[in-house]
Amino acid sequence: MRNPQLNAHGELQHLLTIEGLPREVIVHILDTAGSFVGITERDVKKVPILRGKSVFNLFFENSTRTRTTFEIAAKRLSADVINLNINTSSAAKGESLLDTIDNLSAMHADMFVVRHASSGAPHLIARHVEAHPHLHVVNAGDGRHAHPTQGLLDLYTLRHYKQDFTRLSVAVVGDVLHSRVARSLIHGLTTMGTPDVRVIGPKTLLPEGVEKLGVRVFNDMNEGLRGCDAIVMLRLQNERMKGPLLPSAQEFFKSYGLTAEKLALAKPDAIVMHPGPMNRGVEIDSAVADGPRSVILPQVTFGIAVRMAVMAILAGQ
Amino acid sequence: MRNPQLNAHGELQHLLTIEGLPREVIVHILDTAGSFVGITERDVKKVPILRGKSVFNLFFENSTRTRTTFEIAAKRLSADVINLNINTSSAAKGESLLDTIDNLSAMHADMFVVRHASSGAPHLIARHVEAHPHLHVVNAGDGRHAHPTQGLLDLYTLRHYKQDFTRLSVAVVGDVLHSRVARSLIHGLTTMGTPDVRVIGPKTLLPEGVEKLGVRVFNDMNEGLRGCDAIVMLRLQNERMKGPLLPSAQEFFKSYGLTAEKLALAKPDAIVMHPGPMNRGVEIDSAVADGPRSVILPQVTFGIAVRMAVMAILAGQ
Amino acid sequence: MRNPQLNAHGELQHLLTIEGLPREVIVHILDTAGSFVGITERDVKKVPILRGKSVFNLFFENSTRTRTTFEIAAKRLSADVINLNINTSSAAKGESLLDTIDNLSAMHADMFVVRHASSGAPHLIARHVEAHPHLHVVNAGDGRHAHPTQGLLDLYTLRHYKQDFTRLSVAVVGDVLHSRVARSLIHGLTTMGTPDVRVIGPKTLLPEGVEKLGVRVFNDMNEGLRGCDAIVMLRLQNERMKGPLLPSAQEFFKSYGLTAEKLALAKPDAIVMHPGPMNRGVEIDSAVADGPRSVILPQVTFGIAVRMAVMAILAGQ
Repeated sequence: MRNPQLNAHGELQHLLTIEGLPREVIVHILDTAGSFVGITERDVKKVPILRGKSVFNLFFENSTRTRTTFEIAAKRLSADVINLNINTSSAAKGESLLDTIDNLSAMHADMFVVRHASSGAPHLIARHVEAHPHLHVVNAGDGRHAHPTQGLLDLYTLRHYKQDFTRLSVAVVGDVLHSRVARSLIHGLTTMGTPDVRVIGPKTLLPEGVEKLGVRVFNDMNEGLRGCDAIVMLRLQNERMKGPLLPSAQEFFKSYGLTAEKLALAKPDAIVMHPGPMNRGVEIDSAVADGPRSVILPQVTFGIAVRMAVMAILAGQ
Repeated sequence: MRNPQLNAHGELQHLLTIEGLPREVIVHILDTAGSFVGITERDVKKVPILRGKSVFNLFFENSTRTRTTFEIAAKRLSADVINLNINTSSAAKGESLLDTIDNLSAMHADMFVVRHASSGAPHLIARHVEAHPHLHVVNAGDGRHAHPTQGLLDLYTLRHYKQDFTRLSVAVVGDVLHSRVARSLIHGLTTMGTPDVRVIGPKTLLPEGVEKLGVRVFNDMNEGLRGCDAIVMLRLQNERMKGPLLPSAQEFFKSYGLTAEKLALAKPDAIVMHPGPMNRGVEIDSAVADGPRSVILPQVTFGIAVRMAVMAILAGQ
Repeated sequence: MRNPQLNAHGELQHLLTIEGLPREVIVHILDTAGSFVGITERDVKKVPILRGKSVFNLFFENSTRTRTTFEIAAKRLSADVINLNINTSSAAKGESLLDTIDNLSAMHADMFVVRHASSGAPHLIARHVEAHPHLHVVNAGDGRHAHPTQGLLDLYTLRHYKQDFTRLSVAVVGDVLHSRVARSLIHGLTTMGTPDVRVIGPKTLLPEGVEKLGVRVFNDMNEGLRGCDAIVMLRLQNERMKGPLLPSAQEFFKSYGLTAEKLALAKPDAIVMHPGPMNRGVEIDSAVADGPRSVILPQVTFGIAVRMAVMAILAGQ
């Protein structure tokens, strides 16, 4: 079966998941992103690559932060951007997801940036628009499944600070079970040849059989952090904190919150990452979040460049 | 009395309703739309006709779908577009509709695209801004009254597939009583010289005296469809389905839902239209909606071109 | 201590409040606005001054009207505009205000237009982004504190109609206590050398010690209006009308509503201003609001030019 993300020439047609994405495609995205980092620092942060293209932000699940990053990225590429919060729209009138997609396709959309609470919704849409070769789908987060642009910006950040994936130890800490961010990053890291990927968390927040993804599992954070080059802290969703999987946010912080003390177990030049938004005092201590090893804000900056790169590669030719 | 939609030179000043619009104005809009269909298929779907103009989408009634079509149309004409959902705005602070309009006019708006639950609201606004000759009002649906751009895109679609209005039989089916779409289309068809316009529906969903609009009335769908060239299915509003005017959605489908069987009564090359969003299984069967005679998605495509044409004619000179 | 609104060269870095703004800075803004009034009347109302800049409308408090004025102003300067209603966003996920700001700064924002229910929020943000010299903050209304662009457009209007501030009597009438508009205007008027600024209202709606701002206080409106050149009516917030500070809206209108009769006490060429949205029949009679002495709509027009001027001065060099 052909990779649904690639067209017949092996070029990126949609970005749905990092899983199964060829290494050279990832490298191409990261390299392209590198050229956009410069543009976003210029006085006029705009290039005409997507001029006259219509990019639809289809957010079936509300996320101002993620929507904003895609909106800026598209506008800096000179696209026309249309934001659709679909909860408040035709969905309420009983129109089906695919009827909505058909309609927007008929308006000659060039790109759908899709956020959806259900895993697989962006795949479904990508399959449905197969008859439109000029229409591209970008997954902006689907259920617990994937968040590929976040995974790619994490890879960009790691490469920026640590260069060579084939010599890295990366620890992913926290609620791996519910995290599409973790899933996307792990797939990216293994594809890029990272020899040591670790997941750290309580048993209740680690997916069963996670070892099959090629990672080492730690329930003890101190043990898991030892000697690693990068620590990726995951966000603990509010609903988990009161749920049955955890004793309390305070308890969680004690065992799995990143403090300066725990950070000292990693390599002296280890970097600290977080996809945001942070729960200070729950999964990360403010002293670490704002400390010299934190690259959390550079991640945001790189995130814009990575999204510009993905959009430019998809629709810019 | 002068037609409120035309200026002193007989040119289109506002688009409020198809009723009373001269035939040559309609033809001019359709011809102009034809030139925009090509643009929306180009790689760079953008022309500078409205560059530097400010288009306000004033949606006093929520409709993401319609708002989106106008937003895309305006952006492809290079206008600056500002979306205002007025329920959540000054209206809540007790400001009157006309004070809001005065304010936006004072900001040097060039065009108001108005959607309002009350019939006549766009007329009221058009009359109110008479002192601003450079300010144009487009009715994007008012109460049960009119939805002229929908009517025009229906006309465009009919002309595209059937060329000559003066030889057509067109059947409009369903809830004609509450449908501004039906009203606008019927006026358009009679103005264009369509000799046979039929409305089909249960007595409870047909306006009293509808024959005066120059249509033939059928309560039996099989009878009404016989030999027609085009079938326009109307959306059945959710609130009607549970209301006193109808037994149930299932009953309605049995009598007035368009199935392949009923469609076979029309001419072999008859086309099927629907303004969307569709209730599959209520007013239309999926086999027909997605079948070879359906031109429902081309309607959407033409709708963008028609809205671009209206805006370009109004504000583009 | 350095004025937090000016950079090391004495140039405007942020616009947070009119209080403490040097007279020559105000004059520069008003003069610049004058040049933009012409642009907004042109056929193509667009200049490339902010091309490639990213302006974020950060509205922590909903205000469609004010947001719209900034959005238009920014778009006419060719900026990319991103609207964020923060109540519905990360704030709900527990992210702190300053984490949100850090994130948007990392996206290479050029300007934050901030509306917030808490006095001082824009100052806090401005201080927080000190490390980003290319990032500018505009206060679009904070709590009861300040609304500097409204104050500046009031000054622009007064200068337009009355030329010389040093010979003016200006009366500010109504709910001064809760009005950031009044506060900003009073600071502007005194800075510009207006010799006679009067505040008029019931004791319950005047701040204690308001005389210290350099104004004369009147509880009797007839007395206070006598011989003045301009009357600035304030909006009475709905919540006050039912609150303990006032007997009723009708009572308020009787004592402090501007009628033709009361207006006759001012100079024959006195102008009437109001920041909008108006409560007709509460603080102002319709005959006056729509009468020949009202400059309420020109205020709106000048408001766009003033906001363009502020943005151009801040980010346009």
